Amino acid sequence: MSELRKDPIIGRWVIISTERGKRPVDFPSVAIPSRGGFCPFDPGNEDKTPPEVFAFREPGTEPNTPGWRVRVVPNKFPALRIEDQLVRRGEGVFDKMSGTGAHEVVIESPDHGTALCQLEQPQTAEVLKACIQRMRDLKKDRRFRYILVFKNYGEPAGASLEHPHTQIIATPIIPKRVAEELKGAEQHYDLKERCIFCDIILQELEDGVRVVSENKDFVTLTPFASRFPFETWLLPKAHGSAVELLSDGEIDSLAAILKETLGRLRCALQAPPYNFVVHTAPCQDSRLPYYHWHIEIMPKLTKVAGFEWGTGFYINPTLPEDAAKYLREAALDATRPGGDLCPSR
Amino acid sequence: MSELRKDPIIGRWVIISTERGKRPVDFPSVAIPSRGGFCPFDPGNEDKTPPEVFAFREPGTEPNTPGWRVRVVPNKFPALRIEDQLVRRGEGVFDKMSGTGAHEVVIESPDHGTALCQLEQPQTAEVLKACIQRMRDLKKDRRFRYILVFKNYGEPAGASLEHPHTQIIATPIIPKRVAEELKGAEQHYDLKERCIFCDIILQELEDGVRVVSENKDFVTLTPFASRFPFETWLLPKAHGSAVELLSDGEIDSLAAILKETLGRLRCALQAPPYNFVVHTAPCQDSRLPYYHWHIEIMPKLTKVAGFEWGTGFYINPTLPEDAAKYLREAALDATRPGGDLCPSR
Repeated sequence: MSELRKDPIIGRWVIISTERGKRPVDFPSVAIPSRGGFCPFDPGNEDKTPPEVFAFREPGTEPNTPGWRVRVVPNKFPALRIEDQLVRRGEGVFDKMSGTGAHEVVIESPDHGTALCQLEQPQTAEVLKACIQRMRDLKKDRRFRYILVFKNYGEPAGASLEHPHTQIIATPIIPKRVAEELKGAEQHYDLKERCIFCDIILQELEDGVRVVSENKDFVTLTPFASRFPFETWLLPKAHGSAVELLSDGEIDSLAAILKETLGRLRCALQAPPYNFVVHTAPCQDSRLPYYHWHIEIMPKLTKVAGFEWGTGFYINPTLPEDAAKYLREAALDATRPGGDLCPSR
Repeated sequence: MSELRKDPIIGRWVIISTERGKRPVDFPSVAIPSRGGFCPFDPGNEDKTPPEVFAFREPGTEPNTPGWRVRVVPNKFPALRIEDQLVRRGEGVFDKMSGTGAHEVVIESPDHGTALCQLEQPQTAEVLKACIQRMRDLKKDRRFRYILVFKNYGEPAGASLEHPHTQIIATPIIPKRVAEELKGAEQHYDLKERCIFCDIILQELEDGVRVVSENKDFVTLTPFASRFPFETWLLPKAHGSAVELLSDGEIDSLAAILKETLGRLRCALQAPPYNFVVHTAPCQDSRLPYYHWHIEIMPKLTKVAGFEWGTGFYINPTLPEDAAKYLREAALDATRPGGDLCPSR
């Protein structure tokens, strides 16, 4: 038996195909081998990146020298450039725009071999604080319509450098998927006078079957119409449309649940490659009653994606309810609540 | 320098990042190694698949025995099932539907090791005729809203069996990407009273820079806002909204340009894994003035797709104009116009 499920926000249908029902052990292990060799993100190689735009550092250390805990630098091969003037023009039936924007890299720790979920929680919080600090700064540039924060972990997920890092891209347009979310959420709000994400969170917390974890401020769940096996969303319980409006206390709480969630995925799926994307409101609309910022985590376990790209029609071989159960049961070292949630590779 | 380009049909912006400008040789060769061993699609193993629903066979041979040239069977592990009754229902804020549909496999030739572009042209035409015959038949089932024809070639593109095959899925919904195309094309038609695809074909044939190849009935081009390096579209020159309305003569013409296009990709990119998806009108709307059926071919050369999945925002490291040039210049054996366009692996 399989069933079709509709994403309540953007209206996409997904096939949940239990015929191919997959448990964690059914996915081939794709843990990332260390490549060794020179790394431009390692301490001591600060001159091999463009000069840093932000860092958390030990007192008394100079920019672009060792002593940093988290370091943000412009991408050496940027997809978009901050220097370019924003020009829009037509070309017959086509429209184009200059590649104006920003593309930065958040180096998460000096330690080349430590994954984000293995950092101590205050360090995870500093990674998030560095991202949010850069978002707040980039938002001041009125050419930018959207700030994307995302992470590619592991070569199968598109990471070109092994040293753990997160990326920030500021764009002169609102990405299509974000625009669809905004539109779907606004339609629900117009109809119901409620935020669709708030509705989902309420129903999920009551049901429980798709909830992986929660703390005071946040909940982690596997979405009803998951596109990918073990797709996991992390949402604030209280309504808020922009991640950069979080207080420092809320960022600490987010760091705790992000570390825990990534740790559960790492344990259940043996250090899978994954992507996460922060979905937040556009630059000029920070306080929307109908939109709810969140983080979408997509482990890269299957390759059945080419056809899905072409059609927007996804086939997911793992029931989201099963995925949530596996993640809830992932081995946690209960004796070390603040420590690593799973053994190192 | 990079630039943003807007897909004129569905309105998606794409970053064309020439900073990372990639030529064919810059993509690691991912040619698919032969795995050997048992294959359920090989002649003699007909009883290892569900019974065939269609075949082109030698005279006097029985169904489900050797002697076929093209064979269509239900997928042994279907994503959707034809037996299921179509039931829609709600679950609080969520909507779901039974997994009713069809999932068939078109085995393209008895020869395990011959790629689609290496078949003799009449055989390629029979593959297409088998697909179209099955589409016409499945359309009679009024539960189905859309018939998807697609191919995953190579393990990185999601193929689980090596023996060349194409797949057909009949769905009780219209896939989101298709619905977006229909909507975008209808908006253009409402505004201009012209088909957007016809407009594009006219402009591209005049410009020439993104045209890869053409024959009497069809044109192959790299789209202006290509999401992927060497993304290639194959469109009928005359307006038509549904592939299953083609005449046998037009199918022969399509076979010729499909074989040539896949051959050019195979030569230029060293037998890359790829997906193709046929985009055609929904079952109950075969004759639309605003929609233009076509085939989208997506070579699987990069892995920078996780973030793209999450945002619908693509970064393409190869200029479509450069890709078209490389494909136009791909080595063709001019002395054997009807034969293979490139050497076997």
